[in-house]
Amino acid sequence: MHNQNKQNKKEQKSKTIVIVSGGMDSVTLLYHMNKISNVIGVLSFDYGQKHKLELEKAKFHTNKLGIEHKIIDLSCLKDLLKSSLTGDSDVPEGHYEDENMKNTVVPNRNMIMLSIAAGYAASKGAEKIAYGAHSGDHCIYPDCRPEFIEKLGDAIKICHFTPIRLIAPFSTLDKAGILKIGMPLGVDYSQTLTCYNGGEVACGKCGSCQERLEAFKMIGIEDPIEYASREIIK
Amino acid sequence: MHNQNKQNKKEQKSKTIVIVSGGMDSVTLLYHMNKISNVIGVLSFDYGQKHKLELEKAKFHTNKLGIEHKIIDLSCLKDLLKSSLTGDSDVPEGHYEDENMKNTVVPNRNMIMLSIAAGYAASKGAEKIAYGAHSGDHCIYPDCRPEFIEKLGDAIKICHFTPIRLIAPFSTLDKAGILKIGMPLGVDYSQTLTCYNGGEVACGKCGSCQERLEAFKMIGIEDPIEYASREIIK
Repeated sequence: MHNQNKQNKKEQKSKTIVIVSGGMDSVTLLYHMNKISNVIGVLSFDYGQKHKLELEKAKFHTNKLGIEHKIIDLSCLKDLLKSSLTGDSDVPEGHYEDENMKNTVVPNRNMIMLSIAAGYAASKGAEKIAYGAHSGDHCIYPDCRPEFIEKLGDAIKICHFTPIRLIAPFSTLDKAGILKIGMPLGVDYSQTLTCYNGGEVACGKCGSCQERLEAFKMIGIEDPIEYASREIIK
Repeated sequence: MHNQNKQNKKEQKSKTIVIVSGGMDSVTLLYHMNKISNVIGVLSFDYGQKHKLELEKAKFHTNKLGIEHKIIDLSCLKDLLKSSLTGDSDVPEGHYEDENMKNTVVPNRNMIMLSIAAGYAASKGAEKIAYGAHSGDHCIYPDCRPEFIEKLGDAIKICHFTPIRLIAPFSTLDKAGILKIGMPLGVDYSQTLTCYNGGEVACGKCGSCQERLEAFKMIGIEDPIEYASREIIK
């Protein structure tokens, strides 16, 4: 009876599709959305990224939560969209704000993923799609900025016969703020991959690792994953 | 010297990416854009459509014009996005405005294609992307409506470091209006495929064939492709 009530309550909540890369931000988002809405599907994308291992992390969490998970193979776009995250050039080391970080941008990657998520939401009858853009992304990734989210949201709202809402609940938070949401939800951060170089052991030097190391330091908890170096450069 | 001038003039025009399906609208758009801008790339999409033959038609025209052409394989989205254009159900017969035509909608297909085109434009340094939405589409395809084009255009404008403009020059025209642009440009309409059923011979009965037959009738020219039936139902 209790379980039945729980099920009914879940069904009353809005149906949501979540985009999960397997990094700490989107995995936290998954647990957060799973609490406040009815997550009926999760999408992950293989766009030829070097850090493909993250997809297994995404799978780990969707399995744990019992949510349908689809990995969309967009690796054919690798040659179309130039970026150090997918190509032969090296991922730059250092802080996110540095100019050279711009080469980690995969042009329009988020709009591509969100437009597929919106199509999927339309097919499944979901009312919402959620993704994990956060404030640390703003300075270099144009498709993580609040004004971009707003404009794209306006288009997604009218892309189908019934309205679909785009939300990015972490868009004003930094990684430390995200951890503060994830910790009480019991997110297992040992099963997340944030490093752009995507090895079994995080490099600790790319912008993404640096930001993560800073965030764990800020909340005073040791990051449970293994690093080649834990030194914060800046 | 004359050729040199022509080349210089072309380079002064804005660099444009055009989405071409291989149907009469987008092929006309290609020739139109090739005249007024510098088309540096054409994208076509394989999204599991039954009328895949259209892609060969797109190739015919890009070859003829000497423009780089890429066919993007999105067939993995076939199961994600429900539609009679890609699935097992039959393409409905009759006029576009009929309610059953709604099942020919591939949810959010245009946003997906346009977001990839915008990413490609960003990678190639193009200032514009163009697609062939026209007024006949409005009543059933949400992602062909002028308000959708406007909203998505606002998002695409800020999706990258430099602005990218989305244009749909035929959005207020019907198919007859499009033919009136294409005829003086010498477009070879025998090399276009419009039928949703996608056989070597057009069915003549789907909404797309019906609209095409009406348009040729309206301008008083015989459609050069072969049909199983040329009867206009409505």
